[in-house]
Amino acid sequence: MAKASPVSPLAPTRVPELPPIEGVRLATAAAGIKYRDRTDVLLALFEEGTVAAGVFTRSKCPSAPVEWCRDRLKGAAPRALVVNSGNANAFTGKTGREACKFTAQIAARAIGCRPADVFLASTGVIGEPLNAKAFDGVMEGMVVAARDDAWMEAARAIMTTDTFPKVASATVRLGKAKVTINGFAKGAGMIAPDMATMLSYVFTDAPLSARALQALLGEAVRGTFNAVTIDGDTSTSDTLMAFATGAAGRRGAPRIAQAGDPRLRAFRKAFHDVLADLAEQVARDGEGARKLIEIGVEGAASDASARRIAMSIANSPLVKTAIAGEDANWGRVVMAVGKAGEPADRDRLSIWFNGIRVAHRGARDPAYDEAAVSASMRRPEISLKVALGLGRGRDRVLTCDLTKEYVAINGDYRS
Amino acid sequence: MAKASPVSPLAPTRVPELPPIEGVRLATAAAGIKYRDRTDVLLALFEEGTVAAGVFTRSKCPSAPVEWCRDRLKGAAPRALVVNSGNANAFTGKTGREACKFTAQIAARAIGCRPADVFLASTGVIGEPLNAKAFDGVMEGMVVAARDDAWMEAARAIMTTDTFPKVASATVRLGKAKVTINGFAKGAGMIAPDMATMLSYVFTDAPLSARALQALLGEAVRGTFNAVTIDGDTSTSDTLMAFATGAAGRRGAPRIAQAGDPRLRAFRKAFHDVLADLAEQVARDGEGARKLIEIGVEGAASDASARRIAMSIANSPLVKTAIAGEDANWGRVVMAVGKAGEPADRDRLSIWFNGIRVAHRGARDPAYDEAAVSASMRRPEISLKVALGLGRGRDRVLTCDLTKEYVAINGDYRS
Repeated sequence: MAKASPVSPLAPTRVPELPPIEGVRLATAAAGIKYRDRTDVLLALFEEGTVAAGVFTRSKCPSAPVEWCRDRLKGAAPRALVVNSGNANAFTGKTGREACKFTAQIAARAIGCRPADVFLASTGVIGEPLNAKAFDGVMEGMVVAARDDAWMEAARAIMTTDTFPKVASATVRLGKAKVTINGFAKGAGMIAPDMATMLSYVFTDAPLSARALQALLGEAVRGTFNAVTIDGDTSTSDTLMAFATGAAGRRGAPRIAQAGDPRLRAFRKAFHDVLADLAEQVARDGEGARKLIEIGVEGAASDASARRIAMSIANSPLVKTAIAGEDANWGRVVMAVGKAGEPADRDRLSIWFNGIRVAHRGARDPAYDEAAVSASMRRPEISLKVALGLGRGRDRVLTCDLTKEYVAINGDYRS
Repeated sequence: MAKASPVSPLAPTRVPELPPIEGVRLATAAAGIKYRDRTDVLLALFEEGTVAAGVFTRSKCPSAPVEWCRDRLKGAAPRALVVNSGNANAFTGKTGREACKFTAQIAARAIGCRPADVFLASTGVIGEPLNAKAFDGVMEGMVVAARDDAWMEAARAIMTTDTFPKVASATVRLGKAKVTINGFAKGAGMIAPDMATMLSYVFTDAPLSARALQALLGEAVRGTFNAVTIDGDTSTSDTLMAFATGAAGRRGAPRIAQAGDPRLRAFRKAFHDVLADLAEQVARDGEGARKLIEIGVEGAASDASARRIAMSIANSPLVKTAIAGEDANWGRVVMAVGKAGEPADRDRLSIWFNGIRVAHRGARDPAYDEAAVSASMRRPEISLKVALGLGRGRDRVLTCDLTKEYVAINGDYRS
C-alpha cells in the first residue's frame, strides 16, 4: 500500500451531517486485516423487517462476497452488513467461500440471526486469503457499541486508497412522514462502468417493498454510479446495496409496494440525488485526480450510443493525460469518438471545452479563442461537450484526469 | 511537442541493413510542416505495374488521407506514396480534402503520373489545417534525389514521438528467383487494435496480383499490427500499406494471382515475419515504455474470445502500472479477465508471470515463490500467460507498461 496521499484537491468543501435512520445502527473496529492504526471493519445492524436491494459487478471473476450477496438477496430478511477493507477476498477459491461463511456465522451468532441474513463485502488486495478469524475478536464488541450516528466512521472504515470519506444525505416527505436517505461509498481506483464503484451503501427508513427498492436502485444506477469511470478497470467486488428499514411506517409513512407509485416522486428524486452525489465524490477521488471531468454527448443515434461514446472519451488515456496537462486537445476527443465504434459523422461533429466551441462540423471552429480555452483549462472542473448531429441520443458521464500520481499509486500499491 | 525523449531502452540492439527493392526509390525532405531541423516528408516512387494493398483505421472519424487512399485503392496503378509527419490532416474538413488533392497534384506533376496514382498519409497533430503548399518547394527535388537505399531515412522522416526508426527486411525465394520484402513503421502513441499502428509500409519486388497482396496483408495483420496496443486509443490515421512492384518477374519469379498459391509458402511466412517484427518494434517504442509485455491467452472459448481477453489485460491501466512498478500483481490480471465480458470461470483460471505459475484454478498457487517472481519482474521483457481452461481458443498480443513518462509525454504533446 502506498503511503497515505494528501486529500484530493477535488474533495467537497462541505460535508453534510448525516441524521440517524431509525432501524439502522453502525459500528466500526480495527481487526488488523491489513492496515495498522485504523479501522477496517464496518458492521451495520438492521431492525427486523428491513428489505435490501443490490447491484453488483458484471465481472466474470467476481469476489466471494459478491457471490454471497447475489445468492442471498432474493427472499432475504437482512439483519446485518459486514464490510472489511484491506483484503478483497477475491480469487481466493474455496477458502474465500469459507471465509464468507465464517464471517456471516460470527456476525449471526453475535446478533442472534441467521447467517443468510448477513450481507458481506470486502475491498482491498485481490488473491490473498482473507483471515476471517480476525473478525471473531471484534464482532461482539461492535454489536454492543453500535450507534445510530456513526456514519462518518462507517464511511472511513471501508476506505482503501480513498483520500476522503464519501457521504451523502437527503430528507424528504413520503406521504405525511419525513423519511431519510443516507449513503456512503468508497472508490478511488479500478473504477469503471457496469457498477462503477467498489462499494456503496444507501439506507432509508422508508417503508418500501424489496421489489420497489430494487427497481429504484436499478433505475438510479445508470445515470450515477454506472456513469462514472476512473480508469476503465472494473472491479471484481463492485457492490451497491440499499437497505430500507421501513421504520418510518410507524410514523405514518405509507407502505410502498411498487416503484411506480406516484407517492414516491419526491423520494425517487432524493434517492437518485444521494446516489449521484456519492458517484460524483468517487470521481472526485479518482486515484491521482487533479481535475473532475464531465463529459456530455448529445445528438447521438441513441442514448446507449451516447453512453458508449462518452465512455470512450472518458476512458481514453490520451484525452485524460491532455486534460492533466491543461491542454484542450480536441483532436484526441475526435479520436475517441471515432474509435467508439458508434455511428458518427466526422463532418457533423462539434466539440466544446468549458462551454467554448473549439470544433464545429468537422473542423476547427475558426472563431475560437485559444487563449480563453487555455485559461479555462486551469480550472479544477472541466466540462467537455460533444454534439454528433445525428439524432436525439444524449448522455453524461464523469471521470477524472490521468496523472503521474495515478501511475505512482498503482505502480506501488501491493508492495 | 515534448522534447525529444532518449531512445527507448527496449529498442532492438541490431538494426538490419535493408537491400534495394527493384522498382522502389525513396527520398526525404524537410518541408517545415511542424518540426525544425529534421525531415518530415517521405516520397516513395514505384515503377509502372506496381500493385498496392491497404488496411486502414476503423475510426468513424478517419483522416483525410485515409479516405483518399481507401477511395483510390481499387483499380489504382500506384506510382508514388507521400507521407508527412507533424500534422495528421485529420478533422480538417473540406480543407483537409483539398490538401490531399493538392499534395497528390504536386507529386503527380513532378513524377508525370495521375494524381489518383499517388497514395498519401499524414501523422501528427489532429485538427490543424495541413499546409500542403509546403510540399511544392520540395517535391521536384525529391523526385530527382530518390535512391534505392534510403530506407533508414524514410523510416526517420515519418517519426513523431517515436524514439527510434523501425525497419525490417526479409529475402526469400519465389520460384527460382530471390525476392525481397522491406518494411518500415512508426508508432509510439494512440496505438490500439483495429489497425494497431499509425503508419506502416511494406514493399516487395514479388510479382503478386493486387488481390493476392491484399489477401496476404489481411491475413498477416491480425496476428501482428492488430495484436499490438499501447494505450487502447485508436488513431484516425492508422494505415498499413503494401506495394509490390513485380520487378522480380523479370528475373524469373512466377506471377502469383491468388494468395492461396502454394508457391507463396515461404513468401507468406517472410511477409508475416516482417510485419510481426515491425509491430513488435511499435510495442517496444510505446510512449514512455520501459517493459515489453507479451500476453498469451489459452483455453478460451474461441480465438476471438482469447483476443478480447488478451486486449482487456493489455489495455488495463492497473495491469500496466503494476508491471511498470515491477509488481507481479496477478489479482489485477483476474480483474482484467473478469471485465472482458467473455466466457471465463474464475475457478479454472491459472496465471503465469515469466513462466512461473502464480495462480492456479481460481486461487493463489500455494507453491509459488514470490521472490523468484519479483526478481523476474526486473527484466525488460515480461511474459504473462493466462489459461482459462474452457476451450481451445488462444491468442497473443503485445503491449508495454504505463509509466509516468507516458503521462508526461501526453500531457505536454500539443503545447
